[in-house]
Amino acid sequence: MEQTSDMGFAKVDLDRQRRCGFPEVIYAEGKTVEAVVSIFERQQRCGIVPFATRVKPEQMEALKDRFPNGIANDLARTFRMPPNRKPDLGKVAVLTAGTSDQPVAEEAVETLLWMGVEVVLIHDVGVAGPHRLVENLPQMEGCAAAVVIAGMEGALPSVVGGYVDFPVVAVPTSVGYGANFGGISALLGMLNSCASNVTVVNIDAGFKGGYVAGLIAKNQRK
Amino acid sequence: MEQTSDMGFAKVDLDRQRRCGFPEVIYAEGKTVEAVVSIFERQQRCGIVPFATRVKPEQMEALKDRFPNGIANDLARTFRMPPNRKPDLGKVAVLTAGTSDQPVAEEAVETLLWMGVEVVLIHDVGVAGPHRLVENLPQMEGCAAAVVIAGMEGALPSVVGGYVDFPVVAVPTSVGYGANFGGISALLGMLNSCASNVTVVNIDAGFKGGYVAGLIAKNQRK
Amino acid sequence: MEQTSDMGFAKVDLDRQRRCGFPEVIYAEGKTVEAVVSIFERQQRCGIVPFATRVKPEQMEALKDRFPNGIANDLARTFRMPPNRKPDLGKVAVLTAGTSDQPVAEEAVETLLWMGVEVVLIHDVGVAGPHRLVENLPQMEGCAAAVVIAGMEGALPSVVGGYVDFPVVAVPTSVGYGANFGGISALLGMLNSCASNVTVVNIDAGFKGGYVAGLIAKNQRK
Amino acid sequence: MEQTSDMGFAKVDLDRQRRCGFPEVIYAEGKTVEAVVSIFERQQRCGIVPFATRVKPEQMEALKDRFPNGIANDLARTFRMPPNRKPDLGKVAVLTAGTSDQPVAEEAVETLLWMGVEVVLIHDVGVAGPHRLVENLPQMEGCAAAVVIAGMEGALPSVVGGYVDFPVVAVPTSVGYGANFGGISALLGMLNSCASNVTVVNIDAGFKGGYVAGLIAKNQRK
Amino acid sequence: MEQTSDMGFAKVDLDRQRRCGFPEVIYAEGKTVEAVVSIFERQQRCGIVPFATRVKPEQMEALKDRFPNGIANDLARTFRMPPNRKPDLGKVAVLTAGTSDQPVAEEAVETLLWMGVEVVLIHDVGVAGPHRLVENLPQMEGCAAAVVIAGMEGALPSVVGGYVDFPVVAVPTSVGYGANFGGISALLGMLNSCASNVTVVNIDAGFKGGYVAGLIAKNQRK
Amino acid sequence: MEQTSDMGFAKVDLDRQRRCGFPEVIYAEGKTVEAVVSIFERQQRCGIVPFATRVKPEQMEALKDRFPNGIANDLARTFRMPPNRKPDLGKVAVLTAGTSDQPVAEEAVETLLWMGVEVVLIHDVGVAGPHRLVENLPQMEGCAAAVVIAGMEGALPSVVGGYVDFPVVAVPTSVGYGANFGGISALLGMLNSCASNVTVVNIDAGFKGGYVAGLIAKNQRK
Amino acid sequence: MEQTSDMGFAKVDLDRQRRCGFPEVIYAEGKTVEAVVSIFERQQRCGIVPFATRVKPEQMEALKDRFPNGIANDLARTFRMPPNRKPDLGKVAVLTAGTSDQPVAEEAVETLLWMGVEVVLIHDVGVAGPHRLVENLPQMEGCAAAVVIAGMEGALPSVVGGYVDFPVVAVPTSVGYGANFGGISALLGMLNSCASNVTVVNIDAGFKGGYVAGLIAKNQRK
Amino acid sequence: MEQTSDMGFAKVDLDRQRRCGFPEVIYAEGKTVEAVVSIFERQQRCGIVPFATRVKPEQMEALKDRFPNGIANDLARTFRMPPNRKPDLGKVAVLTAGTSDQPVAEEAVETLLWMGVEVVLIHDVGVAGPHRLVENLPQMEGCAAAVVIAGMEGALPSVVGGYVDFPVVAVPTSVGYGANFGGISALLGMLNSCASNVTVVNIDAGFKGGYVAGLIAKNQRK
Repeated sequence: MEQTSDMGFAKVDLDRQRRCGFPEVIYAEGKTVEAVVSIFERQQRCGIVPFATRVKPEQMEALKDRFPNGIANDLARTFRMPPNRKPDLGKVAVLTAGTSDQPVAEEAVETLLWMGVEVVLIHDVGVAGPHRLVENLPQMEGCAAAVVIAGMEGALPSVVGGYVDFPVVAVPTSVGYGANFGGISALLGMLNSCASNVTVVNIDAGFKGGYVAGLIAKNQRK
Repeated sequence: MEQTSDMGFAKVDLDRQRRCGFPEVIYAEGKTVEAVVSIFERQQRCGIVPFATRVKPEQMEALKDRFPNGIANDLARTFRMPPNRKPDLGKVAVLTAGTSDQPVAEEAVETLLWMGVEVVLIHDVGVAGPHRLVENLPQMEGCAAAVVIAGMEGALPSVVGGYVDFPVVAVPTSVGYGANFGGISALLGMLNSCASNVTVVNIDAGFKGGYVAGLIAKNQRK
Repeated sequence: MEQTSDMGFAKVDLDRQRRCGFPEVIYAEGKTVEAVVSIFERQQRCGIVPFATRVKPEQMEALKDRFPNGIANDLARTFRMPPNRKPDLGKVAVLTAGTSDQPVAEEAVETLLWMGVEVVLIHDVGVAGPHRLVENLPQMEGCAAAVVIAGMEGALPSVVGGYVDFPVVAVPTSVGYGANFGGISALLGMLNSCASNVTVVNIDAGFKGGYVAGLIAKNQRK
Repeated sequence: MEQTSDMGFAKVDLDRQRRCGFPEVIYAEGKTVEAVVSIFERQQRCGIVPFATRVKPEQMEALKDRFPNGIANDLARTFRMPPNRKPDLGKVAVLTAGTSDQPVAEEAVETLLWMGVEVVLIHDVGVAGPHRLVENLPQMEGCAAAVVIAGMEGALPSVVGGYVDFPVVAVPTSVGYGANFGGISALLGMLNSCASNVTVVNIDAGFKGGYVAGLIAKNQRK
Repeated sequence: MEQTSDMGFAKVDLDRQRRCGFPEVIYAEGKTVEAVVSIFERQQRCGIVPFATRVKPEQMEALKDRFPNGIANDLARTFRMPPNRKPDLGKVAVLTAGTSDQPVAEEAVETLLWMGVEVVLIHDVGVAGPHRLVENLPQMEGCAAAVVIAGMEGALPSVVGGYVDFPVVAVPTSVGYGANFGGISALLGMLNSCASNVTVVNIDAGFKGGYVAGLIAKNQRK
Repeated sequence: MEQTSDMGFAKVDLDRQRRCGFPEVIYAEGKTVEAVVSIFERQQRCGIVPFATRVKPEQMEALKDRFPNGIANDLARTFRMPPNRKPDLGKVAVLTAGTSDQPVAEEAVETLLWMGVEVVLIHDVGVAGPHRLVENLPQMEGCAAAVVIAGMEGALPSVVGGYVDFPVVAVPTSVGYGANFGGISALLGMLNSCASNVTVVNIDAGFKGGYVAGLIAKNQRK
Repeated sequence: MEQTSDMGFAKVDLDRQRRCGFPEVIYAEGKTVEAVVSIFERQQRCGIVPFATRVKPEQMEALKDRFPNGIANDLARTFRMPPNRKPDLGKVAVLTAGTSDQPVAEEAVETLLWMGVEVVLIHDVGVAGPHRLVENLPQMEGCAAAVVIAGMEGALPSVVGGYVDFPVVAVPTSVGYGANFGGISALLGMLNSCASNVTVVNIDAGFKGGYVAGLIAKNQRK
Repeated sequence: MEQTSDMGFAKVDLDRQRRCGFPEVIYAEGKTVEAVVSIFERQQRCGIVPFATRVKPEQMEALKDRFPNGIANDLARTFRMPPNRKPDLGKVAVLTAGTSDQPVAEEAVETLLWMGVEVVLIHDVGVAGPHRLVENLPQMEGCAAAVVIAGMEGALPSVVGGYVDFPVVAVPTSVGYGANFGGISALLGMLNSCASNVTVVNIDAGFKGGYVAGLIAKNQRK
């Protein structure tokens, strides 16, 4: 049986769920409105729970029209169909340093919910207000992993990493100005983290941050 | 009871094992021979299984002399005491693209063994010889995570990530020349990986790559 | 007889076809609509098959109006007159990693067709879906060269290079976000390719990628 | 009267103490042994308390021989004459993230002592061991400024800045490896600090970090 | 009593004034109009003198409407309530190299006035017109610190630093073109300043430059 | 039959000659003396003409001892066995800008000779002496490709590309100082070449430059 | 008598002409329309021939209205009053590599004409069409300096420098795409020029390129 | 008659003196001792005054032995034969910011003396000691150009450029540490100079700085 379905404009990988555990996500950027809707439709028809990221406003409108039951998150720029089973894949904490890290955090959260993972969301615990993080530590009890999202100096993952005994997936954001360089400073800070349990994904990569944490959480329940 | 033991030259964090799951590792670079031996000794006395990384030849000699039962790995530049229990924390695959990635791979392997994780080591499966990787895929069956170590273009983690359903921790190495920039090309390649399950640690960070994978594997057995 | 024809705003090199094998291509960026049409016209009158790249919408309109027989490719942003002979210069494969690499691929394809080269176009065979490329390998049979177009980590040329015995011209694209840096990550990945048969051209340089591959294919038939 | 004394190899600025508050410091790097000793001697003769930084071993030997009462700090690579008055210029805290930041810290400490400032030295309080810093906060009571020295991700100044109400002078160190880039990661982290009271000096600039903090402390007592 | 007041969209740190000397500043960028007004209101109610920076035109309008007594500075993009006591915290000089550094300078000035510091503003004394600075030196008499704002080569802080005996806080601006790189050239010039009393904050960081200078001036009066 | 022969320290790809046209080259850097000799020996036994690059002096000595008929090029740092057939794969020109580009040129030449390609070597024709190149143009008659090696501004490939109608493979060298950045300036110059027939390989990549040109020449004779 | 005239928004340096040979040029970027007109007016009244660069359309309109005799160059974005004496300061050649370098060239030309220097303008002589430059060499006879303007690889100044015996002022332009980095590639190429008589100014700095060449030409006639 | 003399290892351009005004300089780096001596000898025999730069100690020894009348400058790393006519080409000032810029300055001085230009050498006038430069301004009277050599922030050329009415050739040096990046900070500072008469050459390019200034001075006397 064919693994790849050639739709003319994009090869949709229907076999991925079996091979990699989760179906292929639809990265909407650079695709036409029609292409996004059509891939979404086809995944749906094949019994896959579709999930689209980096959805532009006009794509979002078309998806909402076509799939009225879908879950749209405008801040996260994601659209997904409701899960077809209850969350049963462990728990992941998502932390942000400041208000402006929220859109990336929302993308991570949507990814985790789509995977069936329980999410603890802790906002605005940047290192310049040190007692804020400490107050929120108890909420992370029982988590399999944390996704820590921060711009500027990117110090939060190191500090979180010093408190917990599970992997921290650090997501640098392009928030800031000047020598921030669109998130490079935060990225470098995270790569050089003195905490041993910190790994890093690309700048603003909320989906990937959530996805890897979700894979770790999935392991937790086996 | 005190958590931190001030030894004059370095504060040894004896409480870390309880708080973070694994005791503090001794990063030997920039420490005197005496300091390394003395911290090692103290951890040992406190019932911790000590583990030292980036050990320089003269430090290695002193450690071998003082701890004849210790396990020295000259390629990995690590020294550790034998584990005080059997490996029981799941399985991790360690893959390298080429011969020159071996020292970093050895550091990851030693870290995993110290943590009590089973290791599958697959060498020399770089992307320019595509059938090599495919031949070795079955060995990764049952792993909780993979540590993929590559220099040059850093493409191997993406390719591995396309085959497996667990997290891939990518470790760029400084192997190469010219526009390699001491591993930056590999690092950037890995950060931009099109595979969703790839996270990244610092260049040549074999310890951190192994450590995070070990934490994921530890989860696996819970 | 004069080699260079001074038109006031640009020196048109009419002798280039004899000296370099192919006539000078019209790089439309930064030229006025009138200049583009006028150079196009003059080349046409001199018996050259004109070819314009990086054509902006308003330039495209003017060219379509003035040369109704011309071949416009809006995605590629190219405009050319139909070839005055049948394709007879060998065969070149053009591969892309993902949907967003398509505009650059189209520019390469148009260039090859203008040169009289047969093109095999293989889309969407990025490394995270490894079986896709393998399925398409047979199509490359008999090619003189491949143009491989990829953004993100730029790993595809290395993998293709491991399968074929002819030169691979790698074209990095500016597709991606974060630590992609407008294509630099892909560029560096390609420059550091572990496959010996991979050369590189500038980011988004679809024309140059196609042109060099076309020159190699031209050689093939001699 | 002449302000500048031309010694052939270097113009010694004897007027600086009056104009800028402190005499010119002797930056020994790139000077011959004879030049260093001779400038030191001349400052001494003019009633200035000389202070040399970045002193190389052979320069150090010559200075020790010639000025047996001098204070040599081999780790800091500094040599100075004892102060001619009691410390009376306020108090400054010097903090380091890890053992390897110590040489830079020592340079800052020597600078402060030479200026007549009281120093509180707090070692090894990096962010991955969060309780260490908190334990040491009371020691900073009454300080006019802090010099915070850190390599790797450079997060410590931000965290310290969140606890104190005086200026923090951050000194990035070149400690680390990989994407540390000789201290650039730490430098960028510090420049992007989310704490409002953090300023930055050059990588490994222990002298400048101490000097600016000393100027602030001097203000304190006016 | 609670230290942090959770408002849903942002945690407002009401305790900061006690802990750090000055209340938390409202960084308006990336916040909604409603959020800015509401945080401003709440700080006001708690007896804090609120201060907002990076205020966008629509946020400015809303603040002006709601707080008719507020002090708006459109060039500086700041909004603050009038101080509730007379300036009593020393004097700071703010210098600019050229006309285009003025917006950043205004942000520094507003910050200092909000802190209750006296400001001496000296414009347009760039190094290519050397006599201009010399003419203005007497105005800096009695200052505790200088904030020196410059784009292009960023040389002004070094020159100022050579004339004065107090700390110079250098603020690079993104003014310029070509190899200016959005202020990086000025930033690097300032970090490498040969004057010992120069520290640096981020590019265009007028608030931070003013804030640190204000903290130094505050010390002056103690 | 097995394609890969596992020798413990490195997997030797004996099938590559069939799949990719040429056998795997031995990159000696980072291998032990024994490993290099042993892989060389094994290839030899399998009927392959072995070729080693980046050979260090001690490796070279061992190879010379073991294979007295081998062809050693100390400048190129290569060692190869004599070809087992006459050169029959077309002609390639190798040009250098200056004396210091010679080692990289020699590596390219050795590669081409190993492949059985005829080589025309043209030294020292940098752009600052414009008549030198013109004098040598006739020698390039009948070539299938040129390998152009240059450091500093990397302008030579563009100029050569303007004269010839075949592909130019540009090899940047790390020759130079200052803003040369170990060859990056030359690399960037070549990537931005205004000549359409110029492709680029990595800095100092004499082997790859020669190899790709050789593949093009091989095509020429088909 | 006062040297600097304080106009509130900018200090106009009326003494510069005596001190530096030419009056201060008005850099219009970042100034209001009123400021530009007013400074222009004042210089005019003081007997200076005013010259404004980087003039924006609305500033240009205002200048044309107020000074109907002024010379506006929209491509160069300059506005100046006619010279008050005949050109008598030697001759300078201005060369461009391609059509897109023209705006920068025009700025250089206007600067030279304002200084009273004779200009030879040679367009479109990029290195990929090598005979074009050679044809135009005779026009440079008798020049004191050349301003050579080029984007892409920035090779033209080196080639020109190889033909002439006077200084070449190289001006990199931001023309190009991909690894051009807004002119950095051209800038680096020019800094690394193998021709000894090439100096460099900032990217797109047509004014500075023309000004320095004009100063050299002025010397010529003394 | 032949213009180029092929010596096997390097093409010596004997015609350059006629074409470019000065004979080809021997860049000794990367040449064998024999090659340097032999090229030197041949130039001498052809009536050229030879000049070698970047001469290594062993090359220097051989040149001193063979040409006892030669002028060796060990600091500058240059060797030249005495001029065959009196200096008659105008006057150039060479200024340095600090002691460590001296080797580069010496290379510039030797170049100017070889060209027959009078040199005014002004050392150690860096911007942090502002009165030093002012004291030395009168010495620059009557110069045709200045070569200004500075590391660190590279501010000196801008300040010098503000005082003089002739071209300033700025030479950045690799002196410094930290964010100096081997002279890049100084280079960027100089490229962004706010003084209109400043051009730049490569880092540590004392020869080129002197050569261009010499060409300007040569013009002066015509």
